[in-house]
Amino acid sequence: MKSDIPVMSLQRLPVYLNYLKSSGGDGAISSGAIARALGMGEVLVRKDLAYTSAQGKTRVGYQRAELIAALEEYLGCNDRKNAVIIGAGELGNALLAYGGFSNYGIEIAAAFDISPEKIGSEICGKPVYDIRELRKGVEELDAKLAVLCVPSDVAQAVADGLINCGVKKILNFAPVLLRAPDGVTIRNIDVAANLAILMSM
Amino acid sequence: MKSDIPVMSLQRLPVYLNYLKSSGGDGAISSGAIARALGMGEVLVRKDLAYTSAQGKTRVGYQRAELIAALEEYLGCNDRKNAVIIGAGELGNALLAYGGFSNYGIEIAAAFDISPEKIGSEICGKPVYDIRELRKGVEELDAKLAVLCVPSDVAQAVADGLINCGVKKILNFAPVLLRAPDGVTIRNIDVAANLAILMSM
Repeated sequence: MKSDIPVMSLQRLPVYLNYLKSSGGDGAISSGAIARALGMGEVLVRKDLAYTSAQGKTRVGYQRAELIAALEEYLGCNDRKNAVIIGAGELGNALLAYGGFSNYGIEIAAAFDISPEKIGSEICGKPVYDIRELRKGVEELDAKLAVLCVPSDVAQAVADGLINCGVKKILNFAPVLLRAPDGVTIRNIDVAANLAILMSM
Repeated sequence: MKSDIPVMSLQRLPVYLNYLKSSGGDGAISSGAIARALGMGEVLVRKDLAYTSAQGKTRVGYQRAELIAALEEYLGCNDRKNAVIIGAGELGNALLAYGGFSNYGIEIAAAFDISPEKIGSEICGKPVYDIRELRKGVEELDAKLAVLCVPSDVAQAVADGLINCGVKKILNFAPVLLRAPDGVTIRNIDVAANLAILMSM
């Protein structure tokens, strides 16, 4: 991981970025103001932002535009990279339709599916390829990221296939724990678990 | 929050539950075995599980069935509660089609939308109601949870509407920071940010 940033800090960087971009305004903004707006501690905000190249000044704070640029640089928003969606079902379709990835330099280049009716079609202008041609597709697209939108019972097999094709970063929506070798990072989004967590908070 | 469990611990409880349910097997399982399977520290696992009613025994571990039951109890899996989806677009449809919520006792009872073509229809057997009848719907369904699947520019207004109707738990997929009064909990899932985080890991 870049400069050994703790995952929790890394997870907060997009939150700062979203806040700064959406709140608008010019000139300087203090870590205190960011902390109050986000309901966080000021020390934590300063620690998190110190992982980026942003330079805060005592009693002044950060230059807003510089801080945005530093966060975008850290999060790789200016480095274009391709991602692929595996599974062109409802969730896959929702992600193919979503325009927000480009904010982070991520281009959803294609989807892969097993269904003959979907293969060869386009969804929101993105081609749907045959999952059996995953290797060719991943190589041609130079896909660094994959989003797994497949049923739980095939998620591990599909992840293994992706890893075999050299994909090292997988975002998994199936509510199962996937095994991966060292050097491969899998991040899980379990929507049902998120609702249960919310209910228990 | 229940018994002051840290959010990070709470977030891991569904991971333990998924692992225990999917790995099968009978009899006892040690915190060490769970920790190894999940690539976590054993002390952390024991601390997390101590928030539940599960009783581990030295040199034996937990009875698998009891531990599952304790996690399910903690996460409210046995308490049926209704949730509503706001926004019956692609993402809303994907969630309406998803069967995994029932594992946590959550029933997606209905969706609400603004589009005349969708209002009155059914998606995966769930009714789509008029967002202007949100209050009536939330009251009749006794909905405790809402999942926001609306565009960013209307997310705050829709969240305010939900809060006005008495909904206190909102899962938000729009990549914006939503304001909420004390007593209301909003949890965010920003898929694009998750991909950027994954890329930076």
